[in-house]
Order: sequence, then structure tokens, then C-alpha cells
Amino acid sequence: MKTLSGKEVVEAIETRLAGGVGWLKEQGVNPSLAVILVGDNPESHSYVKGKLVRAEKLGIHSQDHFLPAETTQEELEALVARLNEDPATHGILCQLPLPKGLDEPRITRLINPAKDVDCFHPYNFGLLAQGEHHLAPCTPAGIMEMLKHYQVPVSGKNVVVIGRSNIVGRPMSLLLSHKGVDATVTVCHSRTPDIAEHTRRADVLIVGIGRPEWIKADMVAEKAVVIDVGVNRVDDPSRPRGYRLAGDVAFDEVSARAAAITPVPGGVGPLTVIMLMRNTLLAAADQNSLKFPEHMDI
Amino acid sequence: MKTLSGKEVVEAIETRLAGGVGWLKEQGVNPSLAVILVGDNPESHSYVKGKLVRAEKLGIHSQDHFLPAETTQEELEALVARLNEDPATHGILCQLPLPKGLDEPRITRLINPAKDVDCFHPYNFGLLAQGEHHLAPCTPAGIMEMLKHYQVPVSGKNVVVIGRSNIVGRPMSLLLSHKGVDATVTVCHSRTPDIAEHTRRADVLIVGIGRPEWIKADMVAEKAVVIDVGVNRVDDPSRPRGYRLAGDVAFDEVSARAAAITPVPGGVGPLTVIMLMRNTLLAAADQNSLKFPEHMDI
Repeated sequence: MKTLSGKEVVEAIETRLAGGVGWLKEQGVNPSLAVILVGDNPESHSYVKGKLVRAEKLGIHSQDHFLPAETTQEELEALVARLNEDPATHGILCQLPLPKGLDEPRITRLINPAKDVDCFHPYNFGLLAQGEHHLAPCTPAGIMEMLKHYQVPVSGKNVVVIGRSNIVGRPMSLLLSHKGVDATVTVCHSRTPDIAEHTRRADVLIVGIGRPEWIKADMVAEKAVVIDVGVNRVDDPSRPRGYRLAGDVAFDEVSARAAAITPVPGGVGPLTVIMLMRNTLLAAADQNSLKFPEHMDI
Repeated sequence: MKTLSGKEVVEAIETRLAGGVGWLKEQGVNPSLAVILVGDNPESHSYVKGKLVRAEKLGIHSQDHFLPAETTQEELEALVARLNEDPATHGILCQLPLPKGLDEPRITRLINPAKDVDCFHPYNFGLLAQGEHHLAPCTPAGIMEMLKHYQVPVSGKNVVVIGRSNIVGRPMSLLLSHKGVDATVTVCHSRTPDIAEHTRRADVLIVGIGRPEWIKADMVAEKAVVIDVGVNRVDDPSRPRGYRLAGDVAFDEVSARAAAITPVPGGVGPLTVIMLMRNTLLAAADQNSLKFPEHMDI
């Protein structure tokens, strides 16, 4: 059994992206990512901090727009409009969830699709669904990179995706079943009566359902590749914080059966932020009518 | 075995839509559909004629814009721009394929999404993929109506869709797996090595692969519901035209095994045009900030 390390994949991508940043700067483009955060949800603050640190580390200019929880819809829209117009801002991310009273879909749809590095805008999501995309949502795009990095074959394989969220499951299923990728994809969800019936047939199983350690060994085919997108807090009085992080997969028993598996933490988690950086570079190049040289593999 | 009649479903929808047209006119809105056809592909002309006739029959104002094959990209774009701006035009359809030299994706993306009654625009397709749609592509939307009309259960059922086109297979799979519909959907395609392995597990099988009579009885589960989207010409010297129309399903043998099946012709075919009319009404209401009364079931 092989453990698929998010860190290893991130390092490989990071090296390529660092080259991309350098190349963009040679072309006179200073890639810049604006991150909007409204209110003081500590989890959101920690996510956003991680993104800003990663950007700076890669040489991507980052702008933090931290707004108070009382920010009005009009104020938030004015900020987005200003960033949309600013030619020096290439990526705009508005950290969700927004405080109550703010209209999330409206903000999401207001972001210029060319700068929509989260790929939440319906226009970008539609291009993705039609197989014509340029940007892809960060977590599923990161999983695609991981499968590529570890040379996990997906063409002609049965892939079962558990979960149909617009951030993970749905775009994941679309990316995998497009022409050229060619997996045969089944999407299971909370209303699937017998999920095990499907998971047992999966050559590759991707789980993002938010139920700690829910996938057991007897639900997984021998030699399957298992990608665990879940991040759940499980009470654990022996830990200083009183909890530990667990995936959606019962790692110990499933790892005894699977050909390869991602751990939690350290598997899929680290991929999301690096793919956000990649989207920022793609957006910056595109907005300046530039194309990265093929060999850079951005 | 039950034969699912497209005609029966169309008649039911037509009655409701006629009510919708009357209601819109009472509100002072005269629903209007513009159909653009470039060149003289006889098949396209016949499709477009069918659409125009159906519109007139329902009391929807129709505008035909028949342009010569030599039409330039600029001329076509100017027409779309004019129709986009015209408040008396609620739906715009540009019949595909366009003659060589014209940029199809560019035209598709130029149509105002609010008037995009084919639902080919990435913005509308993205809303569909995110489960936030107002309009849906006509053929899969028609199949949803057929399943509803004949009370075919899909929630919690295994649905296998064969084909991943952006017009049929892909949007079909999305519509079926959204929250509230809740099918567990598998998308098979030309690169699926063993399609029968999947089709045999299907409670509902939807086939749009373009291979005449390719689905045989031994590929179908007993008591499955089979929806055949294929329309293929098969040589038949005994027919006056030298061919007959055949679906993707071997109707005679599969119908002996299935619980219900759509014939070709007379099954899915008639649904597409009526759903185009429905989309036109939805677009006309939406553009005038109107909502059809619930009981009209538009």
C-alpha cells in the first residue's frame, strides 16, 4: 500500500509555479491575488492566512481586504467592482461563508470570471462542465494533479465520487469524465441507498461526504486507489485541543486493502491552496494575452 | 411492457404552455422567439421549420432569420447583438452547425444568457451544473418531463447515461443527480471498456450514443426503464426513401425485457421542440420580472 503525500505533490507543483512567476515577471506582469474576508470567523481567518503566506512565498503579490462583519452588500459589491476593474489585480477570492445578510450567490456572480480563481462563477463552472475550461475549482484540480503525479490511471477506469457539492464532488466528476481523461464516473450522495454497492466497483474512489471514517475496508475493492477529501473533527480527550482530524475513510483498515490512499491530514488538504496559486498565474497570463511556454508545465 | 409516447407527453405539456402563453399576453407580454439559420443545410431547415410551426401553433411569435451561407462572422454577430438588445425578443436560437468559417463557441457565448433558450451558453450551463438553473437544455429537460409524466421513480435509483455530449448526456446526468431529484448517476461513453457491466445495473437507462440498435436485451436489467435518444438512419431498400430511422436501442428485443421503453421515432424526439417553447415562455416571463402562477405548472 502506498500513501499518497499531498506535500510531495505540492512541492513538485511549487517548483513549476515558481518558474511561472519568474517568467511572468520577465514579461512585465506582477501576478497579484486579492483575498476578501468579511467578519471574524477564526477558521476563515486561518484559511486566508494560509493563502496569503503561500502567495508571498511564491512571489505572488497578495492583497488582503479584511472587512468588518457589519459590511453592507453595497460596500462589498463596490470593492469587488473596483478589483474587477483594476488591471493590477489578476485573481479575486471572496472567502466563504459570508456573514448572514450578505448575498453570496450575488457576490460570486459579480466577480469578473477572468479573475475568478476559485472557479465558483457559473460562467467558469459552465465552461468546466462543457469541457472548455481554463480554470478549475482548486480542490478537484489538485486531486487531478495528485493522480497525475502518482501516475494513477483513470482512463477507462471506474471512478466513484461520493458527494455532489459544487466545490468538490460535482466538479471532480466533471473533470474525470471529460474527453481525454475518460473515466467512467458514478456520483453517489446522501440519497444513494446502497453506497457500498458502488464503492466496491471503484478502481478509484474519491470521498467527500463529511462523515468521519465512514468508508470501511469492506466497502473498498482490493487494490483500489482511495482519495479522501474529508476533514472532520473527532473528539479525542488525549489530544491537547480535545480533538483530532479524521478523514471520511477509516484509514487504518482501508489502507490494508487499497493499492494507494491519501492520509488526513497531509493528503488532499495541502493541494487546494497551491492550485489557487496556479489559477492566479493562469488568470494573470490570460489577462495579459500571454501563454506559458509548454515546457514550464504550469 | 409499456411504450412511453412522446406525443402523449407533448400534448400534456402543450395544454399547460398554451395556458402560459394566454397568461403572458394578459400581462401585456407577447412571447417571441427568434431563430437564426445560416446556410442551406436541408436537415437544419427542416428542424427550424418544425420549431417555427410549433411556436405559431402555440401563439408564440416567431421570427425567422435565414441568412445565406456566405454570411460573415461580423454580420452574424451584429444580428445577435441586435436581438440581444430588442426587448420584444425573448428567446434567441442559433441553429447549429454553422457553416465553416463561423465561430460557433463565440456566437453561443454572445447570446444574452437570459434569451439563451437552447441553454448552450456557459453561464446557463454552469447554473445547470450548480443546480441553480432556470433554463435547461431542451432534450434532457424533455426527458425529465417524460419521466415525471409516466411517474418513473428516479430518486435513489441507479441511472446510467450513455453519452457525454453537451446537448444530451452531460446535462441529463446533471439534472438527474441534483438535490431533490437524487438519482445515482453513472456516465458511460465511447471510452468505457465494458458498457454492459454498467447498463445491467441500471434502473433507468438513457442512451444517446449514436450507434443504431446497439443496446441489446442482454445489456438491460429486467424491468428497467429505457430511454432512447438515438436517431440513426439505417439502410432499408424496402422503404421509399431507402432508409428507416432506428434508435440506439434494439427496440424489439429490449422491449421484451424492459418495464418501459421509448420508441424511435415517437419517443424522445417530439419533446425537444416543446421544451424549446417552454424555455421561451420562461425567458419571456423572467425578462419581464413575472412569475407564472404555481397552478399553471409551466
